[in-house]
Amino acid sequence: MVRVAVLGASGYAALELIKILLRHPHVEITALTSRQDGSPPIHQVHPSLYGRLKLNCEDLNAKQVCERADAVFCALPHVASMAVVPDLLAGGTRVVDLSADYRLRDPAVYEKWYGHVHTDVERLKTAVYGLPELGTERIATANLIANPGCYTSTSILALAPLIARGLIEPTGIVVDAKSGVSGAGRAPKLNTLFSECNESFSAYGIGTHRHQPEIEQILGDVSGQNVEVTFTPHLVPMDRGILATIYPRLTGQATQGDLLAIYREFYAGKPFVRVCDHLPTTKDSAFTNYFDVTVRMNRQQPVIVACLDNLIKGAAGVAVQNFNLMYGFPETTGLLV
Amino acid sequence: MVRVAVLGASGYAALELIKILLRHPHVEITALTSRQDGSPPIHQVHPSLYGRLKLNCEDLNAKQVCERADAVFCALPHVASMAVVPDLLAGGTRVVDLSADYRLRDPAVYEKWYGHVHTDVERLKTAVYGLPELGTERIATANLIANPGCYTSTSILALAPLIARGLIEPTGIVVDAKSGVSGAGRAPKLNTLFSECNESFSAYGIGTHRHQPEIEQILGDVSGQNVEVTFTPHLVPMDRGILATIYPRLTGQATQGDLLAIYREFYAGKPFVRVCDHLPTTKDSAFTNYFDVTVRMNRQQPVIVACLDNLIKGAAGVAVQNFNLMYGFPETTGLLV
Amino acid sequence: MVRVAVLGASGYAALELIKILLRHPHVEITALTSRQDGSPPIHQVHPSLYGRLKLNCEDLNAKQVCERADAVFCALPHVASMAVVPDLLAGGTRVVDLSADYRLRDPAVYEKWYGHVHTDVERLKTAVYGLPELGTERIATANLIANPGCYTSTSILALAPLIARGLIEPTGIVVDAKSGVSGAGRAPKLNTLFSECNESFSAYGIGTHRHQPEIEQILGDVSGQNVEVTFTPHLVPMDRGILATIYPRLTGQATQGDLLAIYREFYAGKPFVRVCDHLPTTKDSAFTNYFDVTVRMNRQQPVIVACLDNLIKGAAGVAVQNFNLMYGFPETTGLLV
Amino acid sequence: MVRVAVLGASGYAALELIKILLRHPHVEITALTSRQDGSPPIHQVHPSLYGRLKLNCEDLNAKQVCERADAVFCALPHVASMAVVPDLLAGGTRVVDLSADYRLRDPAVYEKWYGHVHTDVERLKTAVYGLPELGTERIATANLIANPGCYTSTSILALAPLIARGLIEPTGIVVDAKSGVSGAGRAPKLNTLFSECNESFSAYGIGTHRHQPEIEQILGDVSGQNVEVTFTPHLVPMDRGILATIYPRLTGQATQGDLLAIYREFYAGKPFVRVCDHLPTTKDSAFTNYFDVTVRMNRQQPVIVACLDNLIKGAAGVAVQNFNLMYGFPETTGLLV
Repeated sequence: MVRVAVLGASGYAALELIKILLRHPHVEITALTSRQDGSPPIHQVHPSLYGRLKLNCEDLNAKQVCERADAVFCALPHVASMAVVPDLLAGGTRVVDLSADYRLRDPAVYEKWYGHVHTDVERLKTAVYGLPELGTERIATANLIANPGCYTSTSILALAPLIARGLIEPTGIVVDAKSGVSGAGRAPKLNTLFSECNESFSAYGIGTHRHQPEIEQILGDVSGQNVEVTFTPHLVPMDRGILATIYPRLTGQATQGDLLAIYREFYAGKPFVRVCDHLPTTKDSAFTNYFDVTVRMNRQQPVIVACLDNLIKGAAGVAVQNFNLMYGFPETTGLLV
Repeated sequence: MVRVAVLGASGYAALELIKILLRHPHVEITALTSRQDGSPPIHQVHPSLYGRLKLNCEDLNAKQVCERADAVFCALPHVASMAVVPDLLAGGTRVVDLSADYRLRDPAVYEKWYGHVHTDVERLKTAVYGLPELGTERIATANLIANPGCYTSTSILALAPLIARGLIEPTGIVVDAKSGVSGAGRAPKLNTLFSECNESFSAYGIGTHRHQPEIEQILGDVSGQNVEVTFTPHLVPMDRGILATIYPRLTGQATQGDLLAIYREFYAGKPFVRVCDHLPTTKDSAFTNYFDVTVRMNRQQPVIVACLDNLIKGAAGVAVQNFNLMYGFPETTGLLV
Repeated sequence: MVRVAVLGASGYAALELIKILLRHPHVEITALTSRQDGSPPIHQVHPSLYGRLKLNCEDLNAKQVCERADAVFCALPHVASMAVVPDLLAGGTRVVDLSADYRLRDPAVYEKWYGHVHTDVERLKTAVYGLPELGTERIATANLIANPGCYTSTSILALAPLIARGLIEPTGIVVDAKSGVSGAGRAPKLNTLFSECNESFSAYGIGTHRHQPEIEQILGDVSGQNVEVTFTPHLVPMDRGILATIYPRLTGQATQGDLLAIYREFYAGKPFVRVCDHLPTTKDSAFTNYFDVTVRMNRQQPVIVACLDNLIKGAAGVAVQNFNLMYGFPETTGLLV
Repeated sequence: MVRVAVLGASGYAALELIKILLRHPHVEITALTSRQDGSPPIHQVHPSLYGRLKLNCEDLNAKQVCERADAVFCALPHVASMAVVPDLLAGGTRVVDLSADYRLRDPAVYEKWYGHVHTDVERLKTAVYGLPELGTERIATANLIANPGCYTSTSILALAPLIARGLIEPTGIVVDAKSGVSGAGRAPKLNTLFSECNESFSAYGIGTHRHQPEIEQILGDVSGQNVEVTFTPHLVPMDRGILATIYPRLTGQATQGDLLAIYREFYAGKPFVRVCDHLPTTKDSAFTNYFDVTVRMNRQQPVIVACLDNLIKGAAGVAVQNFNLMYGFPETTGLLV
């Protein structure tokens, strides 16, 4: 049994993480942290866990966490994460970090988009970006995984096959993405109140959303070229799920069938990628670790439609997928429900 | 033209009030107040008003309000309301108060349920409870209207005809009420976040909801007897609307047809009450000032089903209905859309 | 491995059943039936199953089903079910029937509420009502399980402890129940269109809903007395979950603490019942096989609040729970996620 | 008073039309038609109209309609509309046709996209496309208005200012549009069931949606050039509202401020267009006749965000706006609420 801790246990991704870990046969959850007053039982924070897990949410420091856990899922906000990760690693745990702190290789880019100086710059070189469909080798041996963003995974997995083969231009790509509200987190804010979001659809963060440089960095790695995307996130009045509609420009001629064949070849053997002929909806992959994708042609314009559950494949699920690879468990352990 | 002010303009009921007043032919909105920083234009607080009303949300005191307005709709929270109403009345305005501060006749009851000492006790005797379907005379001459609560109006209007005629027992009445989330207000709180409310249905405030004593007081007036209701509010994942399912006990024999006839006679000529044979849904009366009601028999148990829009007939609409009566305008002015 | 078939595989409960069976370690799904044209792959009927199950929806008769399966989950509509169950049993399979056809012991009651003459009257005596929390012995040896209705399970489990101990009157019980829309099935009808249900809350079937006699029969068994409930179902704009608010009358004095203690004692050791101090919401048990219940006092009136997922604990989950008991697997197999 | 009829009164746009006409001071509704059995009262078809309009839904022919009405709003499906419009015009009524039958100038284009031979080809030359913000003169004198599609109005109004001034390329325009479910109509279908749409977001009709050629035709008129758009519609789990996110390519250099200034100049004096600095949401314009639009720059890529209510500004509201222009009433009559 691997003893695991979840830091920042009060959020939505952490709840999904705990649920997945509860059914993982090789894991024991040994610590949950948050800054709640009075170390409440976890079911007071997440009532759905009532009767399922007898642990309290404690305000533990890195040393205390390292005493109890072999592996740590860090679901803290950015900045808070890089403040604790060095001590966790020094204490001998292996870390999957769900924040953005170790995703961007260039500290200047981090500072520009996140508005904070990076305080653990050296480790940016050794942290491994945890998108297993693009390669599992480095993940298997990593001590620190930078778990990808939810919009990011959707966009990268949707574009990687075509950009890797040079079938599309690396710039001028429109990524029009739509997310359920759970992606906005659990801190009470006016714009995520039910009465504001419900029966409404809205765009936000145009040109300023932090997943844009992350998408561009990773797709740049895949293509070996400078990649530029126009990324527009939207809020959908539903709990969970992301659908991205993506408009790249072809470098040459290709049919819909050609493109689908490329996807199928690229993702052959990947247990969580479903290349489909039909148009996927967010509901098809909700509450699962699947990534669904298809492509259509509208005249000469390819239109890629890609879906995943932002809390599972976009956060907690891929985190456990990375964990499985790190510890040598089958990649799908705990993730097929 | 009556010059009107809306105090506490940032909430959901206030927004509906402003929209109704904008189409009222005899009203000019001259002041909006709230404690927003920097007196923002109202459309920054309520984007739906963009291009419709050029007024700022100002932090005005009672004297400043009285200089600009003849009538005041006070949409402040309880306690805040009774702190300003005396000065508004002294300043010569007539006030419709949407808070609970002047609804309960007995200051001890107020203190018990609201947890505050009442600071304007004398005026509790002269404030008029503004439920026009139970009588319009006192409303017409009032200077201070206590505008009813949303659950309260639903429950009282649903029970008044039967209790007035002595057809049901005054105690042991079960009122199982369900409300859209806008009833919970616009202040950011965990339990009204989209991701908490959506795809969830919940009961709350069992035995502790403040509308229970208000229902009992007014129905006590109607019946001339002590009335006791078991009131259970629930939260429905939708923006607006209340449906109450009510289970009184018959004092004698009566058929469904008998009871419906009583309702039709009791509410004859009331423009906003629709006694219907079909089962009303909240959607039928949403965005209107209508109150819909019917009754069914399940064996010998009457089951009353009543609906209204919590923000309109349950708050802003009835406020304008009261205002119309106070100023001698036709009762429906601005309210039939 | 037990080979299982699912009849009527195109509905929502059948989809949940398939998902549970896919993760059940001792089951192989060998046949799916429906009357779809052309025996489509199951993922054309349920796109969420794409890549998870390579079976077609076939129009098989009982004989063909019996050749392929040891156990059958029958998710056909009522009437259709009793037309095929005799042949399935004769063919040697054991059957869990999710329809209402074998739930009511008295064929006259069935005929009155369902409007059809019962065509398999003899078997009503041997069919076992499958609510495991009320006793598992008869389920273990049954060949035909009548799987309970969703509203029914909620109501019975909420009332059984109090009625079994004689703490509440057996008549005059108000059951005000609210369900997500998936309970209304997948056949296209005006009243279950998104644009009709969304942003609306409604009551329906007052005095005519078929779960009322089912609740009364089973609670009559529990109490040994004639039980009468006033059952009012409502439709909530959400996918899944039932919450019932129940108002029985105490036969004597009892505190909230007394009543909660009774629940805890009655359900001790039951893995899927969670007696809680907090008010449960439908979201807490959504997508799980848990039944959550608590009780509050409003003056002397007990108010029971009970929740479950209508498709899981109210249909597919309890079906697998019954199956586990029939085949000697641990009761929770496949059901803790 | 203009006597008006509504043909096809059972749909969602027709309901909105009736509500607007009920508050229009110069209109009397004299006939409602649909193919319902038994000519039911309109409130049996639309319960929200209970007590508001005493008319039945009758199965009238064109001659009968012409005897009762001066003006006709035709809310029939395509094909059904062109079967009756010639007789309505011959009978002396003026017609606003909400179907697509008279929108496309070229009968070959109609046949290609709608799969039907056009049976009233001559009238395609005289029907006037009713988008008042692009010019009101021809509307004022028209006898037959082709009322625009909902996605179409959103897209055209969002692009017209920039394309009219030659600031964007006329081809390669991505229109990523999202609509509430009411746009899909009221006929019961699997894909518009609550349990299918709710908690799901999906794309549909990629490359095949009939609003694509309509957008291209009208924008072609505006620009004097061949226009090509890549139009992708999506379904949002909400009742009403469309948001389009639009990605054109600039022909030269322009700042966000330049572009906003163009919009403000182009739409100066138009009472229902709100050019805003903030990002509009569908909720801001829901239940109104407003069209909201803004533009942002993401690097050199303009991102236009435009919203309207699909049933009002996208159907019933613009129909009445056209009617007002035809009859010389102020353009906003009945439409500012």
